Formats: sequence, structure tokens, C-alpha cells
Amino acid sequence: MDNGSGSPRTPNFRQRRRSNEFPPEISKSNGNYLLVNDKYKYRSMWIRAYSSLWMLAFVSLIIYMGHLYIMLMVVVIQIFMASELFNLLRRATQDKHLPKFKLLNWHFFFTAMLFVYGRILSQQLKNTVTSDKIFYRLVSNLIKYQMVICYFLYIAGFVWFILSLKKRYYKYQFGQYAWTHMILIVVFTQSAFTVANIFEGIFWFLFPASLIAMNDVAAYFFGFFFGKTPLIKLSPKKTWEGFIGASVATMIAAFAFANFLGHFQWLTCPRKDLSTGWLVCDPDPNFKPEYIPLPGLVSHWLPWKEIAVLPVQWHALWMGLFASIIAPFGGFFASGFKRAFKIKDFGDSIPGHGGFTDRMDCQMVMAVFVYIYHQSFVAQDYSVEMFLDQIMRNLGSEEQIALYTKLGHILQERRFIQT
Amino acid sequence: MDNGSGSPRTPNFRQRRRSNEFPPEISKSNGNYLLVNDKYKYRSMWIRAYSSLWMLAFVSLIIYMGHLYIMLMVVVIQIFMASELFNLLRRATQDKHLPKFKLLNWHFFFTAMLFVYGRILSQQLKNTVTSDKIFYRLVSNLIKYQMVICYFLYIAGFVWFILSLKKRYYKYQFGQYAWTHMILIVVFTQSAFTVANIFEGIFWFLFPASLIAMNDVAAYFFGFFFGKTPLIKLSPKKTWEGFIGASVATMIAAFAFANFLGHFQWLTCPRKDLSTGWLVCDPDPNFKPEYIPLPGLVSHWLPWKEIAVLPVQWHALWMGLFASIIAPFGGFFASGFKRAFKIKDFGDSIPGHGGFTDRMDCQMVMAVFVYIYHQSFVAQDYSVEMFLDQIMRNLGSEEQIALYTKLGHILQERRFIQT
Repeated sequence: MDNGSGSPRTPNFRQRRRSNEFPPEISKSNGNYLLVNDKYKYRSMWIRAYSSLWMLAFVSLIIYMGHLYIMLMVVVIQIFMASELFNLLRRATQDKHLPKFKLLNWHFFFTAMLFVYGRILSQQLKNTVTSDKIFYRLVSNLIKYQMVICYFLYIAGFVWFILSLKKRYYKYQFGQYAWTHMILIVVFTQSAFTVANIFEGIFWFLFPASLIAMNDVAAYFFGFFFGKTPLIKLSPKKTWEGFIGASVATMIAAFAFANFLGHFQWLTCPRKDLSTGWLVCDPDPNFKPEYIPLPGLVSHWLPWKEIAVLPVQWHALWMGLFASIIAPFGGFFASGFKRAFKIKDFGDSIPGHGGFTDRMDCQMVMAVFVYIYHQSFVAQDYSVEMFLDQIMRNLGSEEQIALYTKLGHILQERRFIQT
Repeated sequence: MDNGSGSPRTPNFRQRRRSNEFPPEISKSNGNYLLVNDKYKYRSMWIRAYSSLWMLAFVSLIIYMGHLYIMLMVVVIQIFMASELFNLLRRATQDKHLPKFKLLNWHFFFTAMLFVYGRILSQQLKNTVTSDKIFYRLVSNLIKYQMVICYFLYIAGFVWFILSLKKRYYKYQFGQYAWTHMILIVVFTQSAFTVANIFEGIFWFLFPASLIAMNDVAAYFFGFFFGKTPLIKLSPKKTWEGFIGASVATMIAAFAFANFLGHFQWLTCPRKDLSTGWLVCDPDPNFKPEYIPLPGLVSHWLPWKEIAVLPVQWHALWMGLFASIIAPFGGFFASGFKRAFKIKDFGDSIPGHGGFTDRMDCQMVMAVFVYIYHQSFVAQDYSVEMFLDQIMRNLGSEEQIALYTKLGHILQERRFIQT
């Protein structure tokens, strides 16, 4: 969540980094800067709308291209975010004396990348290379020792850091080290959960991301036309009218939009490998319509006697609620952070929006929520199929027979099966 | 790793926190402060030795009492460490204006605790309560929704933080927020891996922890008697003589000590519940002696024709190598950190040693290594027993039969079994 562009005044105090205009809410923050009073609001609205449309078109294309490309998009966004954030607290005067310190940041970044993506995608990776036995064994071993490899890459960075410590810069260096770790956590929490969601089915990525965008747009317009009562000091342009209007709109949109998206197998099937081919699956029960009879009075006036609801639509309501009530706090957090460090935006890559980090603040909170929600309330934790799959994949033929025999004995003992 | 106590001079510059004496390596750091030249070294040695003995006795008692008590000890240490670290960067003048800010830190701490221990001990917890059906169901559900619960506790803290943001303190508050997260990562990484190691068998906790202590003591004595060549600027009292001598000693000790510890079932059996009762298990192959014939020449002079080696002793050599070469960097890191923030120790709880954090720096690096090493090179990842266990635990009787039948069909198709 972001605050649009500011008015073209020149502030008295030091301007930091790329901000061409200083946001009015920093120079004065006691209200009077609601969007309804901002005479530049139309220009700023058009810039935002224009780049939003481009983003929408681009994301649609990527989604059409498939899971692997969506993941790559996440990775690219992630690299941009890390780069924006790495630059935020660096001081050129200190860095002059610490060559290769930037390289170390990226060493940690790529170590984290190997670790996180290796974990999330190990099963997909294995499934993709099953045809070639030697390659499969290589990949299996890499996956098996992935933790060790990543740990030693990390330790290498850790030792490198310690050996690079320079007198008089200790405090700056330790500060940067902590800051790098914070960035990696923020950036990788987001992307790890996002990528995990993507492979559960694009729906679990696209739907929550859309809810955030919808809620953002709705809050913008409700605030634009009706906003009067300031919501929170951190983001002086946000209003209660925008917040509440957007919540209601998002809940309604969530219910309808889940029904729409839920009809595409491309979006609802999980992806168990890394190919980009066509995707067909037996739909999950959550995406199979249930027919709910309408109560007598309603059906009297309408041509339908029942409506078809996908069970996922009930889940959608919870996600809508979260997207409109809790996720905005991701935005407040980012606002507060920018205010604390006196910057307008994290970057300037997206005209009218700021940097990538500015767009991702709420998405992040949302992706984590959706992942946990999906794991806890949607996914089946233990199914017969899951066990069969695991057994066939991970045991040798002799072990499979041993397991079959032992299981047989146990079930016989308990009189569940006949001899 | 720590540097003993300093000489009783009074330094010119501002003394921070509890340090009664200022370490000489901060006031002057261009060498000449090696232990061989320190006239107070005997006194400081006796203080350290005395409290080391008490610690040794205490830890032995705890280990005798069992896994649950060891875990509780880890938790207590963890609380002390968190408290030492939380206090490190607080500024009393700012905190006056931010009531309850300390409470928020502990809210995050206990959320992290619930998350980490819930994950590690879920299986043990389930196994402990199997006798009572209702209680078992309650615990199962708590475990199932544990991630959701923790996530919402975290989000509650996150929202609380944002709502508590106070103008003029933004930067301090964000700094503290980041610092809290860094502390939680450091403290919980350590304890999570340590606790996981404990339940794999006390050996996997006790042995690496002893190696660190041995290496520390050995480095101290080698440095004490032979130390001449400074090792690293960060810790001016460390010498190459101490480092190398300790490495050799630690490797030899590791090989011998693993054989000794490997003979106690109390130490080698994994613990699958939270009871503290007697522990008997079929020893893991790593703890079953293998007989290696001695080469002709050697056996000619010795009364034995072969020696009994536990396979775990080979693993022990790797752990010894790590404990003496890499783990000390945990100490260098802590030294550098203390130097950056101009403090002598993290606390003063252990006479002659400093705070808990001072004693834990290398242990932390080591615990993570041992966990990953154990997972990658020692533990069997998929065994028939593991699957049987999981199937009996997580599937209902009908699903068990379905799994048995389906597995039978698959094995028949592949001609692994007869009809």
C-alpha cells in the first residue's frame, strides 16, 4: 500500500535518495492531506492506473505461461526487492573502505535461495527428472545433501564476514550483517510461501494476490470519493471510509471471484513437476460445485431454485476478511519504516507506485497467511494416496514387500483383514 | 569463547554496563596481551576452573535426570540469553516513553517458543498422551492448528507493534523490532537444533557440547603454556599455538570419548515421548562395535589382534574437526560483536565466564552443524518402520486396509509378490 505521489513543494529538510518529490505527509502530518483535498489527485491517479494496467497485462501473460514462469517472476521481484533494501542502509563513505562487502550480501542471498527453493521444490525437481536414471540419482543426492551444502555455503559467508572485519568499522559491519539477515528473512519468507502456494495450484497464488490488489484499489476509490476520517497517523492519506468500504467490497468480490477462478483447471490443479505442459487433474472437492437450495421466498421471485457454490468460496471469505483487515497492516508497517528512515519509496521502478518493495508489503503478509491457512484447513494432511506415493518413491522393492508383509500381519492381528 | 578476566586497570573511556573491569584488549589491541604475559592469569584461571567445575557437576546431574530436564535446562539458558541480549541495545531514556515495549519482546519470544517446540516435539507429545483418548484428540488438534495459532499470535504482536508506534521514536522502535527478531533467530536456532538433537539421543547433544568445552579448555591451556603467535585481531588473547594444539587434542579426544559415551543406552537411544523413564532400545548400528584387525606389525607388539571401533567414532572425527576449526568462529563473531558495541561480556551470571551468551556462542554453531550432519549422514531418512509407524498413527482402520489392498495390487502388477 502506498500513498500516491506528493504535491510538488520543496521541503526544507534534507532529501534522501531518489525521491523527486517529498511526500506531504512527512513535511506536515496533522491531516489536511486526505485525497479528497489533494488537487493533484487526478494526475497521480492516472499515472497509477496506467502502470497498474501494464502490470495486470504482464501478470496475466505470465500466469498463462505457467507455474515455472510465475516462479521466475517471483524470483525476479525478489531480487529487485533485495537490491532495493540492501541499498537502503548503506553508507557510501563506509563502503569505500570495505570492498567486496556488497558481494557478501549477495552470497548470503543466493545461499538462502538455494536453501529455500531446494526445500520447496525438491519433490517437483525429482518428478521432473525421473526419466533419466543417472540424472535422477544425481538430483536425489543433491537434494539429500542440500542442507549440508547450504549450511557450508552459509558458514563460508560467516567466516568471510569475520575475516573481513575492519577496525573502526565494526559497528557498521555488524549493523549491515544484521540488516542483511533481516532483509533475507523478509524477502524469502514472502517468496518461499508464495512459491509453495503456486505449486499447490495457481489459484492459491493468484486469488490472494488479486484480493490485495482489489482491496487496494477499492480503498483508493472509496477514499478518493468519500474519504473524510483519517484512519492512522502512519498513513495520513488512509481513511476509515476507504478502509471499511474496501473491506465490504473485497468480501463480496472474494466470494464471486473465487467461483470464477475455481472453474479453471489450469488454476486449481496442483503442479507436481517443473514442466509447463497442460494440466489436468481430478478436481479437488473444494472446487466441485455444491448445490444449495434457495429458501422459499427467494426462489419464488427468482428463476432458480438452487445456486451452485464451490466450497472454496467459503474459504475465500476468510481470505477476503484477512486481506482487508489484517494485510493492510503490512502497508502501515512499510509506511512507518519509510517514515523512520525518512524515505518516500523503497525504489522508483514502477511509475506512480514506487519500488517493488512498496508493492509487496501487504502481499507478503497475505502469502504467509494463505499458505498456513491452506495447510491447516484446506490440504488433507495424510491420505492413502500420499502414503502410496511416498512408499513407491522412497523405498526399494524389497522394503516395499517387507512393509506390505508387516502391515498385513498387523492388520490380521487386529482382525481388520482375513488371512 | 571468552577471554578470561582483564587486568584491574581503570580505562579512560566510558565504561558500559556491568563490566567491573575493562578488558585490556579493548583499551589497547596491538598484541602484548597474550596470556603468557598476563600476570593475573593464575587468579583468573582459578575462578574459571572453579565455576567450570560447578557447571560440569550441574550438567551431569541434569543429564542423569533425562531428556525432559535437559530440554528445560536449554529453555532456561535460552531465556537468560534472550534477556541479556534484549537489554543490550535498549536505551532507558527512550524506553520511558514506550511503556509495554519490553512486554512485546517477550510476547514474540513466547510465540517463537510455542512455534519451535511445538514443531520439534509434536511427535513426542502425541506419544506421551496416547493413553487418554479425549486428551489425545485435544493435543492432536492443537498440533494440527499449531501453525495457525502461532501465526495469529505473531500477527497480534505485529499489529500491537504498529499501533504502539510513537512519533519521534519511529527509528528507535523499528531498530528494536529488527533487533528483537535477530535475537529470536539466534536464540531459537540454537535451542531448536539442540532440543532436536537431544531427542535423537542425548549423545547428539552431550558429545558435541563436550567437544566445544574440551576444545575451549585445551586452547586455553595450550595458549597458557605455549601461546606466542597471535591468531586473530578480534580476540587478541587467542594464539595459533592454542588453536592448533587444541585441534589435535580435540580430534584425539573426540575419537576416544565417542567410544566411551557410545556404550550407554541412556545416551544413545532416541526418546520418542516426553517421559523420563528408563530407556532401552535396539542399538543403532552406529553404536554397535565393529572389529578391525590390527596390521601385522602392530599386533606383533601388542596383546590384541583387533580393536573394537564404534562406527560413530568416525562421525566423531568430523565433529571434532568442526568443533576445533569452524566453531571457534562463533567465538570470534561474539568477540567482534562485543567490541563493536564496546561491552566486555553479555552478562555476569557465571563468574569468570561472563553471561550465558558468552558461553553459548560456539555451542550454537556446533548444534546446528550436528543436527544437519545427523540428518544428512547418520539418520536413515526412510525406513520400513518409519512408514509403518506413520501409517498406524495417522490413518483410520479403513484407510489402513485401503492402503494395504492398493499396495498389494501395485506389487502384484510389478510381479514383486504372488497373488
